[in-house]
Amino acid sequence: MCGIFGIYSFSNKDVARKIYYGLYALQHRGQEGAGIVVSDGTEFHSHKGLGLVPEVFNNENINLLKGYIGIGHVRYSTTGGSVIENCQPFIVNSSLGNLAIAHNGDIVNSHIIKKELEKQGHIFTSSTDSEVLAHLIVKELLKTKDIIQSISNVSKDLIGAYSLIILYNNTLIAVRDPKGFKPLCIGKDDDNYYISSESCGLDVVDAELVRDVNPGEIVTINKDGIESCYVSDNISPKNASTCMFEYVYFARPDSVIDGISVYNVRRNIGKILAKEEPCDADIVSPVPDSGITSAIGYSEELDIPYYEGLIKNRYVGRTFILPTQEERNLAVRLKLNPVKSILKDKKVVLIDDSIVRGTTSKRIVDMVRKAGAKEVHLRIGSPKIISPCFYGIDMPTKEELIASSKSVDEIREFINADSLGYLSIEGLIKAIGRKNLCLACVSGNYPTDISLKFKK
Amino acid sequence: MCGIFGIYSFSNKDVARKIYYGLYALQHRGQEGAGIVVSDGTEFHSHKGLGLVPEVFNNENINLLKGYIGIGHVRYSTTGGSVIENCQPFIVNSSLGNLAIAHNGDIVNSHIIKKELEKQGHIFTSSTDSEVLAHLIVKELLKTKDIIQSISNVSKDLIGAYSLIILYNNTLIAVRDPKGFKPLCIGKDDDNYYISSESCGLDVVDAELVRDVNPGEIVTINKDGIESCYVSDNISPKNASTCMFEYVYFARPDSVIDGISVYNVRRNIGKILAKEEPCDADIVSPVPDSGITSAIGYSEELDIPYYEGLIKNRYVGRTFILPTQEERNLAVRLKLNPVKSILKDKKVVLIDDSIVRGTTSKRIVDMVRKAGAKEVHLRIGSPKIISPCFYGIDMPTKEELIASSKSVDEIREFINADSLGYLSIEGLIKAIGRKNLCLACVSGNYPTDISLKFKK
Amino acid sequence: MCGIFGIYSFSNKDVARKIYYGLYALQHRGQEGAGIVVSDGTEFHSHKGLGLVPEVFNNENINLLKGYIGIGHVRYSTTGGSVIENCQPFIVNSSLGNLAIAHNGDIVNSHIIKKELEKQGHIFTSSTDSEVLAHLIVKELLKTKDIIQSISNVSKDLIGAYSLIILYNNTLIAVRDPKGFKPLCIGKDDDNYYISSESCGLDVVDAELVRDVNPGEIVTINKDGIESCYVSDNISPKNASTCMFEYVYFARPDSVIDGISVYNVRRNIGKILAKEEPCDADIVSPVPDSGITSAIGYSEELDIPYYEGLIKNRYVGRTFILPTQEERNLAVRLKLNPVKSILKDKKVVLIDDSIVRGTTSKRIVDMVRKAGAKEVHLRIGSPKIISPCFYGIDMPTKEELIASSKSVDEIREFINADSLGYLSIEGLIKAIGRKNLCLACVSGNYPTDISLKFKK
Amino acid sequence: MCGIFGIYSFSNKDVARKIYYGLYALQHRGQEGAGIVVSDGTEFHSHKGLGLVPEVFNNENINLLKGYIGIGHVRYSTTGGSVIENCQPFIVNSSLGNLAIAHNGDIVNSHIIKKELEKQGHIFTSSTDSEVLAHLIVKELLKTKDIIQSISNVSKDLIGAYSLIILYNNTLIAVRDPKGFKPLCIGKDDDNYYISSESCGLDVVDAELVRDVNPGEIVTINKDGIESCYVSDNISPKNASTCMFEYVYFARPDSVIDGISVYNVRRNIGKILAKEEPCDADIVSPVPDSGITSAIGYSEELDIPYYEGLIKNRYVGRTFILPTQEERNLAVRLKLNPVKSILKDKKVVLIDDSIVRGTTSKRIVDMVRKAGAKEVHLRIGSPKIISPCFYGIDMPTKEELIASSKSVDEIREFINADSLGYLSIEGLIKAIGRKNLCLACVSGNYPTDISLKFKK
Repeated sequence: MCGIFGIYSFSNKDVARKIYYGLYALQHRGQEGAGIVVSDGTEFHSHKGLGLVPEVFNNENINLLKGYIGIGHVRYSTTGGSVIENCQPFIVNSSLGNLAIAHNGDIVNSHIIKKELEKQGHIFTSSTDSEVLAHLIVKELLKTKDIIQSISNVSKDLIGAYSLIILYNNTLIAVRDPKGFKPLCIGKDDDNYYISSESCGLDVVDAELVRDVNPGEIVTINKDGIESCYVSDNISPKNASTCMFEYVYFARPDSVIDGISVYNVRRNIGKILAKEEPCDADIVSPVPDSGITSAIGYSEELDIPYYEGLIKNRYVGRTFILPTQEERNLAVRLKLNPVKSILKDKKVVLIDDSIVRGTTSKRIVDMVRKAGAKEVHLRIGSPKIISPCFYGIDMPTKEELIASSKSVDEIREFINADSLGYLSIEGLIKAIGRKNLCLACVSGNYPTDISLKFKK
Repeated sequence: MCGIFGIYSFSNKDVARKIYYGLYALQHRGQEGAGIVVSDGTEFHSHKGLGLVPEVFNNENINLLKGYIGIGHVRYSTTGGSVIENCQPFIVNSSLGNLAIAHNGDIVNSHIIKKELEKQGHIFTSSTDSEVLAHLIVKELLKTKDIIQSISNVSKDLIGAYSLIILYNNTLIAVRDPKGFKPLCIGKDDDNYYISSESCGLDVVDAELVRDVNPGEIVTINKDGIESCYVSDNISPKNASTCMFEYVYFARPDSVIDGISVYNVRRNIGKILAKEEPCDADIVSPVPDSGITSAIGYSEELDIPYYEGLIKNRYVGRTFILPTQEERNLAVRLKLNPVKSILKDKKVVLIDDSIVRGTTSKRIVDMVRKAGAKEVHLRIGSPKIISPCFYGIDMPTKEELIASSKSVDEIREFINADSLGYLSIEGLIKAIGRKNLCLACVSGNYPTDISLKFKK
Repeated sequence: MCGIFGIYSFSNKDVARKIYYGLYALQHRGQEGAGIVVSDGTEFHSHKGLGLVPEVFNNENINLLKGYIGIGHVRYSTTGGSVIENCQPFIVNSSLGNLAIAHNGDIVNSHIIKKELEKQGHIFTSSTDSEVLAHLIVKELLKTKDIIQSISNVSKDLIGAYSLIILYNNTLIAVRDPKGFKPLCIGKDDDNYYISSESCGLDVVDAELVRDVNPGEIVTINKDGIESCYVSDNISPKNASTCMFEYVYFARPDSVIDGISVYNVRRNIGKILAKEEPCDADIVSPVPDSGITSAIGYSEELDIPYYEGLIKNRYVGRTFILPTQEERNLAVRLKLNPVKSILKDKKVVLIDDSIVRGTTSKRIVDMVRKAGAKEVHLRIGSPKIISPCFYGIDMPTKEELIASSKSVDEIREFINADSLGYLSIEGLIKAIGRKNLCLACVSGNYPTDISLKFKK
Repeated sequence: MCGIFGIYSFSNKDVARKIYYGLYALQHRGQEGAGIVVSDGTEFHSHKGLGLVPEVFNNENINLLKGYIGIGHVRYSTTGGSVIENCQPFIVNSSLGNLAIAHNGDIVNSHIIKKELEKQGHIFTSSTDSEVLAHLIVKELLKTKDIIQSISNVSKDLIGAYSLIILYNNTLIAVRDPKGFKPLCIGKDDDNYYISSESCGLDVVDAELVRDVNPGEIVTINKDGIESCYVSDNISPKNASTCMFEYVYFARPDSVIDGISVYNVRRNIGKILAKEEPCDADIVSPVPDSGITSAIGYSEELDIPYYEGLIKNRYVGRTFILPTQEERNLAVRLKLNPVKSILKDKKVVLIDDSIVRGTTSKRIVDMVRKAGAKEVHLRIGSPKIISPCFYGIDMPTKEELIASSKSVDEIREFINADSLGYLSIEGLIKAIGRKNLCLACVSGNYPTDISLKFKK
C-alpha cells in the first residue's frame, strides 16, 4: 500500500504544488512518509520526509521544487523503524541520465533479483523494491539505450505487483504490472497529463479521468504527447487479477477503479451480505469508518434501521502516548466510544469490512455488550482471510490470521458474538462486478508463482 | 467553545495521565492549545502548549506532573494569532494560596469588570475571561477567606456563560452558571471523582456518569468527599437556557447532556426536518461530518435512500499550505469530494447542520451540480441563524450572517439550490425535548442582558 | 545577570530588527530566553521564547513586530526549570495604558513587597521581580497619573539592583537604581535613541555611545526628545556601588562601563596581580576564556612567556548529552583540553578570574598536572569570594563558597596547586580605577540593607 | 574538511557514546551534519542528521546504536543546499556483507571513475566521493574476496586525498592516502583501539595517542588485534605531502599531527613572520580566533605589546537572520567588535592566518581605522594563496583568489592597510619543521596529477 502521483505540464509550469495536492488526496494510502521529485528539463530537484504530506511539505520547500515534470509518493506505515532512506521516489544517476521511481506494490522475487545483482557488483543503500527496480532498469538501459525497451525487458523478470511512475530525464512513464494488481489511472486537463493511484487524486486538481492504465501497459508522456505500448504481446485484461481489497477497504469510496465505483461496490457488499447472512436484529451499526457504507446497504436490504452505535474520535492520530500493558483496552476506548442510548437493550448487528487477528473485533463486541446491547451479531463484508498477501498489503503471518485455522463458529466463540457471518467469495465477485480479481488472501490461490518468496 | 476536565483521586494517585485521556476525548471542543495543572498537596505543577493534546503532551512532561488533584483544558481555535499566554488553565498565586481556573464560555460583561478592576489597580497579562475570573475570586477570597462564598459572591456580578473547574489549594471545584449555558457533568469510579465538559470524557477513562452539574450549582470535592451548594437561592433548572448548538453541532454524538442523548437529538432533527421540509428527491446525502446523523433520520422518515454523496478527506488537518486566491475552490476540494456515480442524474437533497455565511454551502451545491446531479435541494437541521452568539461560540458579525438580512428564498438563490428548507424553532425544541434552551442566535432573544457587551 | 536593550525611532521606522542585533551583542548576559516588545503607537506587539536570540527570532516573527519604539531582554540561565512564563519583557495592561518592563538585577525586598501586594489583592502569574515592579508602578500610576512620578515613588520602596527599560504607551524610559549596581548606557544615531546594558550593544548597530545612565537617574524619551530627572534629590555618583564583577567577568571586554574600558581593567588586574602575587614560573597560561586578558597582563608584568596551555572547544553548547556520574571528568574534558607540548615539564602559572566552589579549579589543576606540568600555580584575578550576592548574580550559598570557610592555604590544598594567590581588594579597586564599587561578595559589606532578604 | 572517528571495543562494550564524544571534539572540522554507524557483530545500526553533533544526537538515539565497533563522521559546511543524503558514514550492502565508509579529503579523479562505473552499470544515489569509494571497494571485493587486497587495489586508481575509516562486517580499517594529505591517528586504552582525524579526539575519551597512520598505510583492527600493511611497496613518508593548512588553520591547536604540535607551529609562524616582516607598531593584535597564537609569537619576537583589539561574539552561530544587502557591514560587526580604548591613536599591526578574497580583511582594516587607530598594518601567517585546492579545502576559484592576480602592494591598496606582509614559503616550512608538505595553494605545484580534474 502506497500512493503515487505524476504530472507532465505541456505549458512548462511548475507542477510540485499540484503533486502536493494529489498526494494529499492519496494520503489514506500511506502516512509514514512522502516525497516529490521534479525535473526542470536539465536537473532533478527533490524533497522527502517522514510524516503526513502537510508535515513534510511547506511553502518554502515546495517553492524550491522548480520543474514542469514530476512524480510523488506517499509511503505506507509498516512495522519496524521508519527511516528516511526508505522514502520514495527513489532517485539514481546513471551515465544515461537521471531516473526517479515511485512504486506501489510488492515484487515477490525482488530479494532473489537483488542477491543476483549484488553478485554482479551492484550495491544497494536501501531495503526497498524501488531500488532493485531502478538497478534493473538502468542495467537494461546501458544495453538497449531505450527506456521503454528497458522497462519492457525488466518486466519479464518481475513476479508480483507494481504500479510505477518513472521520471526519466524529460519523460514521464506509467507502468502497471501485467496482472494489474494495483490501480493506476490517467488524467488530463488543458495544460497537463496526470498519472494517479486513484481517481480521487485527479478530482482534487480538477482534472478529468481519461482512463485506467491497462494491466501490462507502459504509458509514455513527453513533449511529443502521450503514447502507449505493452510489456509483451500476450497480455489480456481478462487475465488481470486486481486486488479485491482495493474495493473493499483501501481505496477511497469516491474513486473509480477500472471503471467500477468503489462506493457502489461497498454498498453492494452490504446488500449481498444481507441476503447471504441476514440477521434478526433491532438495529444495524457499522464499525467506523470502514464498515459504514456496507452497513447502510445491509440496513437498506433488510429494512432494519441504521444507527451509528459507535463513535470514532476524529482526532485519534498516530502519536498518542502509548498506554501501558494494563491500559490496552483504553487504546480502543480512545478511538471508539459506544452510544449507550442507541445500544441499550437492543439486538445489534455490527458490520465490519474484515477480521484479521480477531482481537480488535473481540474488544468491540465486548464494548457494545457493556453498553447494554441484548445481542451482538457480527457480519463481515469480505470472505474469511486465510492466507497472507505477497503483493503489497501488510498482513500478519498465516498463523496469526484467525480464519486460517478456526471455523466460523470457533471465531464467533473467540470474539464472543451471538452470531457471525462472512460474505462469500461469490458474493464478493458479484458485488464488485468483475471476475478478474486477486482473491489470494481469501482463497489461497495466488495468481503468480510465489515459491520464490520462500527461497533464500 | 472549549473543553474542561478535572479529577480528584481519593487514593492519592497521579491524575495527569487520566486528564490527558479525558482531554483527548474532548479534543473536538478545541484544537488550538491544551494545558494541565495538578496539585501534589503543596505545590502546583503545570504544562501548557499550542496544538493538539498529543502534540502538547508526551510521556516525559506527563510524568513530571506529579499530583492527585488536577484540571485540564483544550482551547478552541479562534481568529487571530494564537499565543501561549492565552492557553489555560490560568494559574495565579495569592496570599491565600494557589488557584488555577479552566473556563468554558464567554462572560458578556468581562471587559467592563476588567476595566473596573484595572481602575482599582488590578493588572492583567492575558486577554482571557479566565484571568478576570481569577482576579474577582481572589479579591473576594481576601475578604471572605472562604472559596465557596467567594465564588458565590463573584457569580452575582457575572453575566454570561461559564462552566468552570477550579483547583484551589487541595480542593477541586466545579461551577456551572445559573443559566447552564454550557454542559458540565460529574463522574466517578472506585478511586476518583471526575468533572468533564461532556460525558464522552468520562467514558474514555471508564468512569460512570453520576449526573450533570446543575445550573447555578457549585460542587466541591476534597478529602472530606463531595458537597454541593448553589450560587443563590432563586435558581431553578426551569430557568436554564442551555446552548441548543451543543446538541446540534458541538458536542460529540456519544455524549449525554442534561440527561438527553446528543445522538438521539440529531436523529430526531432529521425526522422532524423531513416532516417540516420534505423533498421529492432520489437520494438523501449529508454534508459530512456534521450532517450525517440528521441525514439518516431524514432518509428514514421519508423513505428516500441514504447515500454518502460527498467524501471527506480524513487527513485534512490544520496545517496544509494555504492556497492562493485563485485556488480557493481547491480548498473545498481538498476537504470534500463528490462521488459522481452516486450523484449523476439524481435529484439530491443535501442535509447540513447550519448555514452561517452561505459561501461554503454555495461551493458545495456547486460541486454537487458539477458532479452531475439533476437537482440539488438543501435542508438545514437548525433554524436560520440571525443573531450573533455572546456566550462562547465564534460567529461572524450580524452583517456577515446571511440569514440576518436575507429571506429563505434569497438565500436559496445565493447558494444556487433548487430548494432550501430550515428546521423551525418549534421543531428544534421538539427534537431536543426540552424548552429551557438558549435560542438567541436563531430567535434574537438573549436570555441575559447583553447591553453591556456594547458598552465601552 | 540579564541584558536589556531599547530603541526609540524618531523617523518612525520599525525597530525590532535592530533590537534583535542589540540583543545578539548582549547574548553573553543571558542565554536562557529572549523577548522583544514593540509599540506601533497604539498597540504592543511581542514575541518571546526560550533559547538563544537567533533560536527565538526569525525573519517571520521579526517582521510581525511592527513598531517604532521597542525594548528587548535576554534572560540568564538560572538553576531549576526554565519556563516561558518567566521570560521578559513583562507586559501588563492597565486602565491607563500598556506597560512593558525589561529588568536587569535583583531586588532584595521584592518578596516582601509581593506579599504585601498579595494582601492588597494583587495577583501574580510569574515568579519574577519584573512583575512586582510592574504592579508597583501601575499602582502608583493610578494615584499620580504620571509615569515618571510613579517610577520615582516606587523606587523609594525598592532595595537592591535594577537597571530597567520601560515601554509605556509611546514613551521609552530608562532607569538605573541609586546605587548603579548594574550598567546601563545611552546611544544615538541620526534616527534613533538607544538604551543598552552595555556599550557593545550600541556598536553592533553603529550607534554612538552618548553617556551612561547615572545612578538614580530616570531618562525619558518620547516624541519631544530626551529628558532626565532623578528618583530623589540626595543622589550622588560618589555613593554608587557598581558591581565589580561586571568589570572582572560579566561584561564584554569591548564594553565601556561608567567611562572605564572593561578590557583595560582586566589587563590591569593581571599586572597588579603579578605585583601582588608573583610566581617563578616558566609559562603563564589562562583558563579560557575569562582568564585570558589578565593572563596577558600578568605575563607582561613579570616577563614570563604567555602560552595557551588549555584549549577550549568552541562548540561546547548548552545541549550535550549529560554524562553519567562516572563521566564527570569527561564533562570538563569536553570543554577544555591541555596542550601537552606546552605544559610538559614546565612550571606553569594558571590565571583564572575567580574561584567559587573550587571543584572546577581542582579538575583543571589536575588536568594540567596529568599533561606533564612540573609545577602548577594558580593566580586569581579577584579577591576571595566569601559572601553571596543578593543583587542579581547567581551564586551558591555561603556554605558552598569555598573561601567563606577556608584559608588560602586550605583552598590551595583542596585544589592541589603548588601555590595559590588572590588579587587583594585594594588591588582590584586600583585595577578598576574607581572606589564606588559593590564589593559585597569579597568584603561581606553590603551597600544596602539585606536583612529583608531573610525575612519571610 | 571533515572529521572522522572510529572505535573497536575488545571488551564488546557499546561504543556509540564514545564516538559521540570523539565527534564533539572534532566538531571544528565540520558543522553541517554528523553520523554514526555501529556494528553489533551481525547488523549495522546508524543515525545521521544535519546540524551540530549535539543537535543530531540525543540519549534516545545514541542508546539505540548498540554495537562494539563503530565509525563516525562530521561533515563540513559547503556552499549550496545541504541534504541528508550527503551525510556520512555512507553504508552499502553487498553480497559479501555490509560496508560503511567515513571519508575526509577530495579525490581528484572521482568524477572520471564515477562516469566509468556508471558505464559499467553502477548506479549512484548521492554526490559524494564516499559512494564512489564504496562502489570501487565492493567491486574489487567480489573479485578478490579480501577486503585489504581490495582497498589496496582500489587505491592504485585513486588520485587525491583520502583519510578513511571503514567498517566492514566485524573489522575496523583505517586508510591514509600515500601522500598523507589529511591527518589520521591511532589511539588506545585498556579496552579499545581508536582511530581519529586529530589527536584531540583521543584526549576527550582519555585515550593515549599511539602514533599517526602512515601515508599509504592500511591499519586493520579486529578480534585478532591490530595489523598494518601498505597500499604498495614504494611508499615512503619522505614523499608525503601533508596539507600545510592543517597546521596553519584547520586543526585544533591542542592536536599533534605527524609528531608535530599544531600549537607550536602557530607560535613559530608568529616568530618567523616577525623576523621576515617586522613592523614598527605600538601594539600587536590578532584577528580572532585564527590569528591569536601567531600574534602572541609575533609580539614576543619583536617585543611589541600584545592586545586583543578585536573582540569576537562567542555566540555567533550559523543561524542568524541574514542581513539584507545594505546591512553587509553589520554582519562583520555582529561577529567582531573593536576595543576603542586599545586601538585609539595607536599604530596597530594585525595578525591574520590568511587572505582569500580580501573582502573580509578590507572590512576589518576599515573597522580598526574607524575605532581610532593611527596606522593599520597587516601581517599574514601564511604565504599568498595563488591556486585553488583540489584535495578537500573549500576555496573560491583562482579568479576570486586576490593573490592570484595582484601583487602584495596591490592587495595592500585594496584592503587599505598601511603595510602588508606575508610569511614566505621557506618561513612556513621552517615553522612547521617538515618539508614533506602540500604547498599547492601557495606554490601552484600540485603533488599529484590534477589534469583529470578538468577532464569531463
